[in-house]
Amino acid sequence: MCELLGMSANVPTDICFSFAGLMNRGGRTGPHRDGWGIAFYEGKGCRTFHDPHPSCESEIARLVREYPIKSCVVVSHIRRANRGRVMLENTHPFTRELWGRVWTFAHNGQLKGIKRRPTGFYRPVGTTDSEHAFCWLLDRVRARWPEPPRGDAALTAFVAGLAAELNGLGVFNMLLTDGRTLWCHCATHLAWLTRRAPFGPATLIDEDMTVDFERETTPGDVVTVVATRPLTRDERWTVMAPGEFVAFRAGVHTA
Amino acid sequence: MCELLGMSANVPTDICFSFAGLMNRGGRTGPHRDGWGIAFYEGKGCRTFHDPHPSCESEIARLVREYPIKSCVVVSHIRRANRGRVMLENTHPFTRELWGRVWTFAHNGQLKGIKRRPTGFYRPVGTTDSEHAFCWLLDRVRARWPEPPRGDAALTAFVAGLAAELNGLGVFNMLLTDGRTLWCHCATHLAWLTRRAPFGPATLIDEDMTVDFERETTPGDVVTVVATRPLTRDERWTVMAPGEFVAFRAGVHTA
Repeated sequence: MCELLGMSANVPTDICFSFAGLMNRGGRTGPHRDGWGIAFYEGKGCRTFHDPHPSCESEIARLVREYPIKSCVVVSHIRRANRGRVMLENTHPFTRELWGRVWTFAHNGQLKGIKRRPTGFYRPVGTTDSEHAFCWLLDRVRARWPEPPRGDAALTAFVAGLAAELNGLGVFNMLLTDGRTLWCHCATHLAWLTRRAPFGPATLIDEDMTVDFERETTPGDVVTVVATRPLTRDERWTVMAPGEFVAFRAGVHTA
Repeated sequence: MCELLGMSANVPTDICFSFAGLMNRGGRTGPHRDGWGIAFYEGKGCRTFHDPHPSCESEIARLVREYPIKSCVVVSHIRRANRGRVMLENTHPFTRELWGRVWTFAHNGQLKGIKRRPTGFYRPVGTTDSEHAFCWLLDRVRARWPEPPRGDAALTAFVAGLAAELNGLGVFNMLLTDGRTLWCHCATHLAWLTRRAPFGPATLIDEDMTVDFERETTPGDVVTVVATRPLTRDERWTVMAPGEFVAFRAGVHTA
């Protein structure tokens, strides 16, 4: 199974600490040796790093881990290939533009028959079920709203419906963002945690590393982290139920 | 003026040597302090690195320079902002998907009135003339061929026509690729060089660095480098004329 990691924050925040935990699962403490990728939003811009090599050996992973890119939305994925060969074009997260926004998608699970669903405007570059599902989903959103809707509630409800429909094809653990809202669907494993004042220390499960967030933050910060499994041993994670869907905006749970 | 750098090769080739020359122009030997970006194709996949910081100070530039990512097509850009603020979303190269291929675009120059031209399917994320021009160009290609044409000749002729039209709005030095063909339009400054057997040494103009390509290559390699200005002092670059358009595929000059 792949590992997902997402972040939504109300101030630009680096994800070095959480990424350090995730990265070890790429071949050292976990079996996810088939590449990894991460997307960072900075304003409307989005920077992605992809590497088809195991993250624990990756020069690029080391850079991301040590170089604090501050972002309000992050989506990351470490891959254990089950469908689609291990190649750059099959490495999550996937991105497309809609309404002048960069959309980013990462998924774990299998989706039986997804490739029989037609894609229209958006077409897969690689051969994964996941990218096909992303193209299908974005085509549906685009067909529903050729221009962006006002407010997020209807869009969130629509995305939740599409996620539930995809989940009917198999296993659909998903992180999706338009650079504003972070949408998360749990099929089997997904957990989240919101850090806000008063901040305290946190210790990674996968590495002997502790951060005292009180020293790293200001009192108004709200930072939500979403991951396949809890990343820290001393914080209260909300473990999502199968079929559950949540949305975050600026770190705050909105749906 | 911005610096463009492109590569087309018949075997996966690293661009470390040329990038070393270009990178120094990002703030050390050149005035291009407003960010840089690079896209590497590996098969159908495309990896991009973007940094709104000066390339000569950039951790990410150091990584790209030292970490030999082997690619058959590369497009890179170092920016001197003239329109559009210095932000990640305004940092070239820009990418979009069409026909299940990743298209990448980098430009230098200004295009008067480009923003009055409507965009349709593709919309700019940032505020540059360049990204607007890219969206307009891709919309035109998509409208002409909803499905990819057979062969490259008609597509190359069509892209050349669009480039000439854009050049009519101002200054349009461009590198564009669909991951297969590298299209280049010269408005003011663009030069190219094809390296093939027998290979010899090459010395960078911007840095005290020589590579002996005979030791770095095999006899069948064909590698074309395109840059705003020649990067080496001891090779025969073809300096393009204003209005000239060229295309390369697998390193070979095709049009």
